[in-house]
Amino acid sequence: MCGIAGIVDSGGVSLPLYYALYALQHRGQESAGITTYHAGRLYKHKAQGLISEVFNREILEGLYGTAGIAHTRYPTTGENRPENTQPLNFTLKGHQFSIVHNGNLVNNDDLVSDYEEYGHIFATTTDSEVIAAIIARELTISGSMEDAVVLCMRMLRGSYSVIAMLDETIYAFRDPLGIKPLCIGKTENGYMVASESVAMDALGADCIRDVRPGELVRINGNGISCRQITRSDRSALCIFEYVYFARTDSVIDGVLVYDVRRRIGKMLHHEAPVDAEMISPVPDSGMSIAVGYSEASGIPFKEGLIKNRYIGRTFIMPTQTLRENAVRMKLNPIRGHIKNKSVVLVDDSIVRGTTSRLIIELMREFGARMVHFRVGSPPITNPCYLGVDFPTRKELIAHNRQPKDVQSCISADSLHHVSLEGLIHATGHSADDLCTGCLTGCYPVQIPNERSSCRHIDFIHGSYQTTLQF
Amino acid sequence: MCGIAGIVDSGGVSLPLYYALYALQHRGQESAGITTYHAGRLYKHKAQGLISEVFNREILEGLYGTAGIAHTRYPTTGENRPENTQPLNFTLKGHQFSIVHNGNLVNNDDLVSDYEEYGHIFATTTDSEVIAAIIARELTISGSMEDAVVLCMRMLRGSYSVIAMLDETIYAFRDPLGIKPLCIGKTENGYMVASESVAMDALGADCIRDVRPGELVRINGNGISCRQITRSDRSALCIFEYVYFARTDSVIDGVLVYDVRRRIGKMLHHEAPVDAEMISPVPDSGMSIAVGYSEASGIPFKEGLIKNRYIGRTFIMPTQTLRENAVRMKLNPIRGHIKNKSVVLVDDSIVRGTTSRLIIELMREFGARMVHFRVGSPPITNPCYLGVDFPTRKELIAHNRQPKDVQSCISADSLHHVSLEGLIHATGHSADDLCTGCLTGCYPVQIPNERSSCRHIDFIHGSYQTTLQF
Amino acid sequence: MCGIAGIVDSGGVSLPLYYALYALQHRGQESAGITTYHAGRLYKHKAQGLISEVFNREILEGLYGTAGIAHTRYPTTGENRPENTQPLNFTLKGHQFSIVHNGNLVNNDDLVSDYEEYGHIFATTTDSEVIAAIIARELTISGSMEDAVVLCMRMLRGSYSVIAMLDETIYAFRDPLGIKPLCIGKTENGYMVASESVAMDALGADCIRDVRPGELVRINGNGISCRQITRSDRSALCIFEYVYFARTDSVIDGVLVYDVRRRIGKMLHHEAPVDAEMISPVPDSGMSIAVGYSEASGIPFKEGLIKNRYIGRTFIMPTQTLRENAVRMKLNPIRGHIKNKSVVLVDDSIVRGTTSRLIIELMREFGARMVHFRVGSPPITNPCYLGVDFPTRKELIAHNRQPKDVQSCISADSLHHVSLEGLIHATGHSADDLCTGCLTGCYPVQIPNERSSCRHIDFIHGSYQTTLQF
Amino acid sequence: MCGIAGIVDSGGVSLPLYYALYALQHRGQESAGITTYHAGRLYKHKAQGLISEVFNREILEGLYGTAGIAHTRYPTTGENRPENTQPLNFTLKGHQFSIVHNGNLVNNDDLVSDYEEYGHIFATTTDSEVIAAIIARELTISGSMEDAVVLCMRMLRGSYSVIAMLDETIYAFRDPLGIKPLCIGKTENGYMVASESVAMDALGADCIRDVRPGELVRINGNGISCRQITRSDRSALCIFEYVYFARTDSVIDGVLVYDVRRRIGKMLHHEAPVDAEMISPVPDSGMSIAVGYSEASGIPFKEGLIKNRYIGRTFIMPTQTLRENAVRMKLNPIRGHIKNKSVVLVDDSIVRGTTSRLIIELMREFGARMVHFRVGSPPITNPCYLGVDFPTRKELIAHNRQPKDVQSCISADSLHHVSLEGLIHATGHSADDLCTGCLTGCYPVQIPNERSSCRHIDFIHGSYQTTLQF
Repeated sequence: MCGIAGIVDSGGVSLPLYYALYALQHRGQESAGITTYHAGRLYKHKAQGLISEVFNREILEGLYGTAGIAHTRYPTTGENRPENTQPLNFTLKGHQFSIVHNGNLVNNDDLVSDYEEYGHIFATTTDSEVIAAIIARELTISGSMEDAVVLCMRMLRGSYSVIAMLDETIYAFRDPLGIKPLCIGKTENGYMVASESVAMDALGADCIRDVRPGELVRINGNGISCRQITRSDRSALCIFEYVYFARTDSVIDGVLVYDVRRRIGKMLHHEAPVDAEMISPVPDSGMSIAVGYSEASGIPFKEGLIKNRYIGRTFIMPTQTLRENAVRMKLNPIRGHIKNKSVVLVDDSIVRGTTSRLIIELMREFGARMVHFRVGSPPITNPCYLGVDFPTRKELIAHNRQPKDVQSCISADSLHHVSLEGLIHATGHSADDLCTGCLTGCYPVQIPNERSSCRHIDFIHGSYQTTLQF
Repeated sequence: MCGIAGIVDSGGVSLPLYYALYALQHRGQESAGITTYHAGRLYKHKAQGLISEVFNREILEGLYGTAGIAHTRYPTTGENRPENTQPLNFTLKGHQFSIVHNGNLVNNDDLVSDYEEYGHIFATTTDSEVIAAIIARELTISGSMEDAVVLCMRMLRGSYSVIAMLDETIYAFRDPLGIKPLCIGKTENGYMVASESVAMDALGADCIRDVRPGELVRINGNGISCRQITRSDRSALCIFEYVYFARTDSVIDGVLVYDVRRRIGKMLHHEAPVDAEMISPVPDSGMSIAVGYSEASGIPFKEGLIKNRYIGRTFIMPTQTLRENAVRMKLNPIRGHIKNKSVVLVDDSIVRGTTSRLIIELMREFGARMVHFRVGSPPITNPCYLGVDFPTRKELIAHNRQPKDVQSCISADSLHHVSLEGLIHATGHSADDLCTGCLTGCYPVQIPNERSSCRHIDFIHGSYQTTLQF
Repeated sequence: MCGIAGIVDSGGVSLPLYYALYALQHRGQESAGITTYHAGRLYKHKAQGLISEVFNREILEGLYGTAGIAHTRYPTTGENRPENTQPLNFTLKGHQFSIVHNGNLVNNDDLVSDYEEYGHIFATTTDSEVIAAIIARELTISGSMEDAVVLCMRMLRGSYSVIAMLDETIYAFRDPLGIKPLCIGKTENGYMVASESVAMDALGADCIRDVRPGELVRINGNGISCRQITRSDRSALCIFEYVYFARTDSVIDGVLVYDVRRRIGKMLHHEAPVDAEMISPVPDSGMSIAVGYSEASGIPFKEGLIKNRYIGRTFIMPTQTLRENAVRMKLNPIRGHIKNKSVVLVDDSIVRGTTSRLIIELMREFGARMVHFRVGSPPITNPCYLGVDFPTRKELIAHNRQPKDVQSCISADSLHHVSLEGLIHATGHSADDLCTGCLTGCYPVQIPNERSSCRHIDFIHGSYQTTLQF
Repeated sequence: MCGIAGIVDSGGVSLPLYYALYALQHRGQESAGITTYHAGRLYKHKAQGLISEVFNREILEGLYGTAGIAHTRYPTTGENRPENTQPLNFTLKGHQFSIVHNGNLVNNDDLVSDYEEYGHIFATTTDSEVIAAIIARELTISGSMEDAVVLCMRMLRGSYSVIAMLDETIYAFRDPLGIKPLCIGKTENGYMVASESVAMDALGADCIRDVRPGELVRINGNGISCRQITRSDRSALCIFEYVYFARTDSVIDGVLVYDVRRRIGKMLHHEAPVDAEMISPVPDSGMSIAVGYSEASGIPFKEGLIKNRYIGRTFIMPTQTLRENAVRMKLNPIRGHIKNKSVVLVDDSIVRGTTSRLIIELMREFGARMVHFRVGSPPITNPCYLGVDFPTRKELIAHNRQPKDVQSCISADSLHHVSLEGLIHATGHSADDLCTGCLTGCYPVQIPNERSSCRHIDFIHGSYQTTLQF
């Protein structure tokens, strides 16, 4: 998961991109970068760290120009490589080229081999460099960015929301299934694209609409234009954008994330009511779900756990045996609320189960009489190959375990996951327009070594002018 | 406002003090420090920055010993002096002496003059160094720490919760009116004192009780003992600890802060009900008050503003004219919730009014039909001399302005502050046991150049052995 | 100018490369980097700054492996680009590839265009990436590193000493004219190559011999082997390596630099004797030349200027008008030595003349009666296109100016440059084996837009096994 | 050993103090600080590190005012305490007071006890805080700075060159024996004092004369005035200032350090001539001595060892066994010079002997046939109590060892130290005006637990107006 943004605005883009990154910081805390274009050259800065650590006023003032792109990166397991920070920047026959990417390619290795055959050498281990190589080669041959993107959509298999900058023009496109979000906004003196609508809110810009699956958007000083490169009769937005990843105040494909989560809470109550004295979220992610459960059930919403806002990446944990108590530093139970009470604890998901178990233990230590666990997503039983950093199958607590066994593992008095149908209904989308691979094992793109019962579709590639509506 | 902690534990104190500081980080983000004692010398580290920036594993591993004190500091207006970081450390006739302090002395200048007459020279501008000077001189003369604290209580006028370490013994005391909080806890192999009970929770320690106003607590390897140094027939806990400063999960003088705030919300509804479609807090401080208002009114609780958790001290704001829009980066309205809605917005207080006005404007920009503002404290009409960094009288929006005028300044459709009586009632304490100087102009200690209609009391100094109850 | 090194040693290479960089720090202070290879992956670290700033123990301990290469970079005018730090690292068909380069290509732009036609895109602006692209493409086609180097020697025009690492094997080669130095050493359990012999000295390794112009050296766990790829009847070592660049204790092509400089000093006395009371160097570069002049003339060697060893890159200079006085901070005249004395001041070269003028003014201010300037190189009248960062023709004080005019510009009482013949004689080499382009305008490789009266040679490419002699 | 400076100049003192510190950096590399006074408050910055690390443009621009003092500190064994950085800053009855100190008190503990009796508490472990306490107390009583300095001179036993700033006036004084250097200069629009004359040279200021032993200098906006506080019939300048500490271009008490060292070299030849082929210094400290030896003997001066200028505090050394080879990184023998040669190696002193032994081994490894060691100071047989960080007696190689044994320890072919008489003669001073405690065991002030055969003198305290001569 990453956050990306691109802006063309005659009033300058350095500060707006910085603000957009701040609004997207929840999508990645490992590294951040901005590249801008001015008068024939790129101005760039990227580094590991939070946005607040990577940029300062002096750096931002040195990022000249009226076009630019930005990126904030989520650390993938076991890889902490400085050279994987984005944007990636290149020169290309006298042109300046820069690219950012959110997503994951499942045929990356094959593409790398192919392009190495053409003589290309790769400096990083990122999918983004492969995408850059494809575009670069095609630009060299045909000179048309549109052709290059058509080629990408033919060759790339996986999820990819991409923003590329060729000199002062920004190109943005989303994979044919629209697995990762990307939306279009109108700034004061230009246009922008970004992973989520909150980036527009942060700038006082208007979010116009989402980039459509398989669509290419071009923004430069003359304005914005859109072309539909590929058509498909289904789409596959990652359902976890609604459950967990996106900010609660984002609107994705026309649906407010907060409302989806509140509806999940109501659905949970509908599917698994419980007689209890209070509803408490696991902060922050269970918050809106808990509000929905409380509304539907009439049981009072009351915070049973307070989150310490200051625990960050550099927090020092004690020796291994004490490490489990780190949860205690992050989440403090309110004894006065939970003592001798029967509590419904609401969280968005269970992955390995370790944290859930520690939280429930902590609730009991502070006096909770009963802890009923309600979860805003079905059991996660399969890995994700399309950009989410879930662990391997074996590490998933729900893999080869019945809910009853999971309940016992985490020592809850009762456990209920929302049903897949209930979750899909809460999103307001059709099951055909969502990726639910991690919940069903059925992925919308063919995954090497994964049997798949899914219907995979062929994309009709072409180019259709689409109209941007304000 | 600052956070302080002191621990004597045979298992080592470096990590526990670090965790305690994390739990108290909300009380001060400017600087942090820890001093420990081991085998005749002090080990110390302090610097400007957040706890996460000031300490790392290597530093903590170098802080040896089974006794130590810690401090995290809130920046006072216009003063950002590295030498004011605490603990302050001294040598004293072959003994090691270290001190931390939360509070503000109103007769600091007089005390400085007195002690300069005795030949003392001062390196810092903090009250803490004056307290250290008094203790040091008295220790030199009488050799008794208890006598030294008696002297402090006679000479110091203002608020002071102090933790001092003389070699391996920790002494903690609270001013005779108990203006600043301080509580006692039992750790696994020792005892501790800290500003708030959440510090105990973070360590898995038990909070035993608050240090009493005018009480002296001594902790060393042999255990803990307490003496009542001064008695008074009233106390004066800062009422804003309940309204805003303390963490919502802290228990102060036996009362859970969260519950006080929820009761304030109920009181607000009782005093100023309104016909509206949703109750929304200004996050984070209005949260529990809004929950209370929603419960009492039956109007749904729904977040209308989402806080960006990543905006910190180093956030770069644009030019002056745009600066007001910085609120937009920090608080994002949810259009889908507030559009065409009548909203009750709940906050803890109004100081200058600027932020309130900007938030209400933002709510309207995102479509709110009506914005009713409800405030969890009476109008702040007077400065604080006892440790809260309120601005001068002139800058307070409620100074010389009727609520009607303030409502117009912040452009709310209606505005109501909780009444002083309502607020006091919500705390569960008697008016005689709270400091309400900023709300009433009546301060519990005599302030130079402030007329005061308050009854000021004489303290009966003495020393009474008290029993610590578990 | 840069410093490069490569080591294969079964005892580990991280610390040895670090020491080698320290020994080569004089060749570049802008950035430094090390890449090592271990078990299928590269370990790497590079950053801007001095070696002491770029590396620490923890970083070095993370650079695993028994093969590695290193680089320290000199800043070229106006370019301070973080992405230009070396080594450059790539993946290549499952192999790991890393490269460092000292030199300058004069046909870089043409090569970039060619390779962009093949679909290659460039991330940096360095010659090194072009060399990497050529090698990568050829490796893809032929699979032979030797063929790839043959191709480089055919295509590259300019100066290049290169060390490349393909998995655990190191390849080093020097351009057919040997413009930049590179030598071979025997470490305790392996072999190494480095820009100068002092890198071997620092490790306690033995310097075996220089890499020959047009030669390819291969080092891996099995030992070392050498092949002569290209033959030419002349070579063209940069004469300024002897005059200024190399460390005085280095041996280049069999000749000790210190001795060359001392011979220059003797030659200077022979060509331009002067009746004076003392010989003083401009430290540090004029030192050995002054020793030679003193020996030949019998006039006492006496330091007239002391250099402040602590003035570094971050030294803060005052406003423009005072800036000239910065020389005063760096070089302090000894009044007691020069007052009323006639001094022979000896420096290695004059470029813009500004510093020389300021030094002579300073000498007079401190009382020198006469200042005779003696220079260890002929007037620099032409730019360098082969790796030395001399300014443009116009900025060179000797461009279109007679020595008499230069003497007047720098206000010396007399001025003499060593003659070209004298200088060449001092190196012990034939004029046919040195590059003297900046002194004569006659470059050993064809420079675009430079008329050249030089004989340019065709290289006979082939591959001849050569024997390494110990 | 430390470097100190103070300037009053109507053109501002921040940059001049910074330059003065750079000129004095050789006297201390552990920490640095500047305090300036402007309009009733102090502006200050100090930190651990080199001057280049401690200051930047922004910091210097924030140090307002036309009066200021500065300090650079040498690390004393085993003590690396951030709070010991200087200047020490205090407030004192509404006045601002700041102090820097070079030297060492032998009765520090007694003074600390005395002042603790008066109620003073100490924050640091430095002598400087004791001096500040004495001055502060006396200023409080008598209000006269002159009286305070008289008191200091009565009470302090040891070495002390002090610069104190009381608001906009600077006071400088030197102990009655003048053990540490301090001199007076005339800046463009004011006056200055500094440890060495090179600080004046760096600013383009004129060095007027040394502060006399027992003299007090006052500088403010009205100019400079001097008073002789104490008189004595002898003085005791540390002889090692001439041998090693001071910069070679400094003039101390009218004598150029370079010339002293050259005379030592001549004396060494006179006392211990040797038939050899070259004279080589151990750089940098043996340089001028070797020049003198070469001049006197007629044997050619030739550098046999080249120093790596980049090895600094952060240089990482390998494991213990290899550590000795670190000398190899710092000093590189020139094989071409020393192979099969008989070399006279000249150094300033031998302390532990370890480095000397390693250097001689290295010379032999690179082929030197014979290594004759000549040392510019007599054997160091006693510790220094007056500010030099020599090790304890036991660690001194010359303690209880005859020169013959030392020669064998360091494996030199011959070893000769200059005689005490020879050294004293080279300084141009009388034996009565030098401290030679470390060479003779006879200290000019009484040292606790040191038997002393020295004549100790009583100082005649008084106050005599002296005239400053330009």
